[in-house]
Amino acid sequence: MTYCVALTTAEGLVFASDSRTNAGVDYVTTFSKMHILTPADDRVFVLLSAGNLATTQEVLNRVNRDLEHNATTPNLSNVEYLFEAADYIGKISHAVQSDRGPALQASGVSADTTLILGGQIAGHDPGLYQIYPQGNYFAATEETPFLQIGENKYGKPILDRISRATPSLADGARLLLVSLDATSRSNAAVGPPFEVAMIARNACAVGNYFKLEADDPWLKNLQKEWNQGITNAFFALPRFSWEQSPVSVVGS
Amino acid sequence: MTYCVALTTAEGLVFASDSRTNAGVDYVTTFSKMHILTPADDRVFVLLSAGNLATTQEVLNRVNRDLEHNATTPNLSNVEYLFEAADYIGKISHAVQSDRGPALQASGVSADTTLILGGQIAGHDPGLYQIYPQGNYFAATEETPFLQIGENKYGKPILDRISRATPSLADGARLLLVSLDATSRSNAAVGPPFEVAMIARNACAVGNYFKLEADDPWLKNLQKEWNQGITNAFFALPRFSWEQSPVSVVGS
Repeated sequence: MTYCVALTTAEGLVFASDSRTNAGVDYVTTFSKMHILTPADDRVFVLLSAGNLATTQEVLNRVNRDLEHNATTPNLSNVEYLFEAADYIGKISHAVQSDRGPALQASGVSADTTLILGGQIAGHDPGLYQIYPQGNYFAATEETPFLQIGENKYGKPILDRISRATPSLADGARLLLVSLDATSRSNAAVGPPFEVAMIARNACAVGNYFKLEADDPWLKNLQKEWNQGITNAFFALPRFSWEQSPVSVVGS
Repeated sequence: MTYCVALTTAEGLVFASDSRTNAGVDYVTTFSKMHILTPADDRVFVLLSAGNLATTQEVLNRVNRDLEHNATTPNLSNVEYLFEAADYIGKISHAVQSDRGPALQASGVSADTTLILGGQIAGHDPGLYQIYPQGNYFAATEETPFLQIGENKYGKPILDRISRATPSLADGARLLLVSLDATSRSNAAVGPPFEVAMIARNACAVGNYFKLEADDPWLKNLQKEWNQGITNAFFALPRFSWEQSPVSVVGS
């Protein structure tokens, strides 16, 4: 399983991903699902992936081969708009799946991969696109500023509550980490290390990237404080009218 | 869609359910998914249902018919153990689905219903059972004191955090309501009115039942306070080491 999430804020873009990969519960491994691409000085891309690992790696191999050998056809170094980058990646992803699909389907395995592509090309706004296995795509908006792929449900409620109130990249990074935390608590197939990358608006580069292992002291403290904060908020909720007020309870 | 959840605590049992039913997004209606059964003075049952509405109603119709006409065969008024009640309901549910399944499958519709049966028979501990469409069942435990059916993912993280720390029935009711709140915010097919029922240990009766409509002032206040509490907890989370301390930020 996988959980990747990205957020667009006024300050720029934030990306986060887990690293747990499993082919059945008896083969659990660690693979990065965050791929940072800087094919030219005027642009930066972050690609998050959820789905068939071989498909995702082949997409990246073809993308990098195009950068080395196909300078005159569309590739990540020469597309003008971010949507063209999403379109280009979507076409490659669909082509890989078309190549591999029949053999995999015969074994009851899906070749699908779902991707989030975010970044900025100088002169244009930063943006986030979700790319479906079929190659089509849509962009995040101010109204719905986050995109999720993989195991998306456990971590969505906190995004629904907070995502439009996170003006800073740091708040955005904390938000994606607590969304990852909720998901990894509820689904054992999602787990650390967690990767986080941030792209400040108009920087056209990843300004901050870090990887948090399961035993990272800062991550453990964040998880502890978040759990305590939620627990405190829960036990401070309004009483029912039929409950005794705490001060009226006397020892028996 | 549906979301029903039940919790066992030292004080007894708590049940909660939404009431939104949909046959496609263009036919959304309100049906209770909480069924309280008190077939004898020494016992109480609450049945929560998620799945095919006609199947669920037919299960209840057969259960009630057995109470009126089949006093000598197993029914809810004469079973000795709670697991026998779960077994009885499971057999009826499976029989209804076997009757209706072929015709429904031909139309691409599932006859499945998944149930939670909770309650107490005097002289035995209270308990909660989840009953699968196939008629088999398992009980909640101290280690995992909650059961969920229907749209279970959005509301699970808060149960994972809090469920083992809720000694009182009132805390349990609040917990199930905030779990319902998270679910209905993220999935429009889950919605109020929310029903809540509580069975105190050894009472063998529902001691408290209430239904909260979407515009109920107490529910709206709970939702507001919970959202504010979570938001406050979020913005109080530890800073990253590379963040400026708030006091060092000066106006530009």
